[in-house]
Amino acid sequence: MTCIVQKFGGTSVADVEHIKNVARRVKEEVDRGNQVAVIVSAMTGVTNELVKYCREMSHFHDAREYDVVVSTGEQVTIGLLTMALHDIEISARSWTGWQIPIMTDGAHSKARIENINIKKLKKCMADGQVAVIAGFQGLAPNNRIATLGRGGSDTSAVSLAAALKADRCDIYTDVDGVYTTDPSIVPTARKLDKITYEEMLEMASLGAKVLQTRSVEMAMKHNVRLQVRSSFSNESGTFVCSEEEIMEKEVISGIAYSRDEAKLTLVGVKDSPGVSATIFGLLADENINVDMIVQDVSENGEITNMTFTVTKADFGRTINILKDNHDKIGYINLITDENVVKVSVVGVGMRSHCGVALTMFQALAEKGINIQVISTSEIKISVLISEEYTELALRALHTAYNMDDKKT
Amino acid sequence: MTCIVQKFGGTSVADVEHIKNVARRVKEEVDRGNQVAVIVSAMTGVTNELVKYCREMSHFHDAREYDVVVSTGEQVTIGLLTMALHDIEISARSWTGWQIPIMTDGAHSKARIENINIKKLKKCMADGQVAVIAGFQGLAPNNRIATLGRGGSDTSAVSLAAALKADRCDIYTDVDGVYTTDPSIVPTARKLDKITYEEMLEMASLGAKVLQTRSVEMAMKHNVRLQVRSSFSNESGTFVCSEEEIMEKEVISGIAYSRDEAKLTLVGVKDSPGVSATIFGLLADENINVDMIVQDVSENGEITNMTFTVTKADFGRTINILKDNHDKIGYINLITDENVVKVSVVGVGMRSHCGVALTMFQALAEKGINIQVISTSEIKISVLISEEYTELALRALHTAYNMDDKKT
Repeated sequence: MTCIVQKFGGTSVADVEHIKNVARRVKEEVDRGNQVAVIVSAMTGVTNELVKYCREMSHFHDAREYDVVVSTGEQVTIGLLTMALHDIEISARSWTGWQIPIMTDGAHSKARIENINIKKLKKCMADGQVAVIAGFQGLAPNNRIATLGRGGSDTSAVSLAAALKADRCDIYTDVDGVYTTDPSIVPTARKLDKITYEEMLEMASLGAKVLQTRSVEMAMKHNVRLQVRSSFSNESGTFVCSEEEIMEKEVISGIAYSRDEAKLTLVGVKDSPGVSATIFGLLADENINVDMIVQDVSENGEITNMTFTVTKADFGRTINILKDNHDKIGYINLITDENVVKVSVVGVGMRSHCGVALTMFQALAEKGINIQVISTSEIKISVLISEEYTELALRALHTAYNMDDKKT
Repeated sequence: MTCIVQKFGGTSVADVEHIKNVARRVKEEVDRGNQVAVIVSAMTGVTNELVKYCREMSHFHDAREYDVVVSTGEQVTIGLLTMALHDIEISARSWTGWQIPIMTDGAHSKARIENINIKKLKKCMADGQVAVIAGFQGLAPNNRIATLGRGGSDTSAVSLAAALKADRCDIYTDVDGVYTTDPSIVPTARKLDKITYEEMLEMASLGAKVLQTRSVEMAMKHNVRLQVRSSFSNESGTFVCSEEEIMEKEVISGIAYSRDEAKLTLVGVKDSPGVSATIFGLLADENINVDMIVQDVSENGEITNMTFTVTKADFGRTINILKDNHDKIGYINLITDENVVKVSVVGVGMRSHCGVALTMFQALAEKGINIQVISTSEIKISVLISEEYTELALRALHTAYNMDDKKT
């Protein structure tokens, strides 16, 4: 018997009417004769409100108590969705994280799932009952409620699909799939029928907010077939699967961008061993993640410039650390720039095609866009450019790689 | 070491600031060197909102799923209160019903507590940690969440005080104690220092909404010393305790009233054995609770009139049942009246004093108030009168029994 895991995010369960719509989507799968487990998020806005209460209560709250509070959002949704299913005569019951249990580690508020005991679930599903499961939560080793961190419901769904050996894990959201790039900027962007795990991972971590990065990692590890699709339409969405499943590979699958970057340049640092270790050691000690790094080729072998990027959230702290350690690092000047964007082309086909980077550089040059920093991996090329060129660059690249939807 | 159970209702934990106030009240008991367990309700309005969602979702919802939804209100409060305690450097942790566990029967949405496993709680409290416990909820035998029905947090508190053998169970609310009668109607009403369980039970079931009836029954059964007090003042409240603890007994402790009554009179029913059984059997089958009953003395031994009261909520259904069974019961006419109020004087001293009823009847007669129905028990006398006389009757009786506060 086919086993399907369905996951509905906050906008799909926004209110009573939306939850009734979700119940109908669940019924469709049941009517096809499938065994169904449904993972739901909290109703839109509910988690934010609960987090706000916690912040108002105390700046340094115990993460275990935070989890007790914020995990209630999903608990409300499972009860309501189960009622909606009963109302259209679908057998169903709700499951909190601790009832299954979904065991996590003890890292409260950002816990990781360690193990899911599917015995009771399986039995109920085999009896024809839809399992309605609270996402984003589990049970920590000390019998206390744990949450997985924001967006964790995707991870709940994929973990459960892996544990149940589900045939498919459908992630229902408010968009109808994964696009070649942001359709609100590039009107000719196309919905992808399929994308590999590796590509999706790059797209997700590069700012395409369709799926939580960790859930894609987990899907890849356990070979869970993911489908990203809309809860408001019946069209099929985008399948995220292994490379072997995709027959005709495009060279480039998508173009992602992230405005969450800030650039710092240390002018006139000594060009000697150990300098980078000093700089990035200081930042690592403060849990600041450095993304792109480039060191100028030294002209005289004595001093050089070091440029790197951090997230906008870490920008202020990074500046302070660099200033506080001016003597320790030794540099002449610090130049900073927040008005930058990282644009990346992603595709597994890149591995076997040359000239991919050249196409990118030419397309940007033709529009007069200056590239500030470049970084590459096996399946992506990222460039840092001035933020004002974001839309122009995305459109130029989309055309340069022949990705435009001809119908549009 | 003294063990104190504190219970704070919805208005006491209405928002972040109120919860911080509750934390300070808990700290006072901790600072006195007491072991403290705190039971809290949901923030005002939260449970109503959750119930509304359930009603909107489905008219005939599964009570087990209703419990999953509505139990979240208390869970939010325990997390927030624990944070507030940490913020003022009080060691504390939160406990949901299933974590303790508080075991209930399987009557979801109106479950009864069967057993509380205090082992883990006791250990934490002995280590100096305040136990912050979700009221109104427990764990049903099938590992599912159960709620105790509205107002159940009082019952949670008393059950826990009994299980912990607590020295005192303080019920914090928005009034500062139990009054001789409703102070909003009778300005000379006095706060009682002490009241017996039996009297409190009558007062509670007669409409004084300070404590849930079942919690008083349970306190009486397990001899838990209750104190009803205000969460906004430091004055001591009203102790609810056994008769032996009260040295100077008043004849009458309080005057209660209930507007939740409706009167029905069946005119011309046969005065023969079995008629009452027919009437009240029909109502019992539909779960309608009949309160006061009076049967007129038959003039000719053939036909008589039967008058009784039901709650206003059951009024419409009762009329329908009587009309549908007109032939079966056999009566000439049905007269109904919703504009009635039940006024009751309550006091254990009544047992050993004569003339209590006479005082009542005389006081009402002096004001020209007609008594429609009378019912009595060992420690109370209730009369049904026209609703428009409610305030007049309460004030007259309060004066007649010498209960007026001389200071006012």
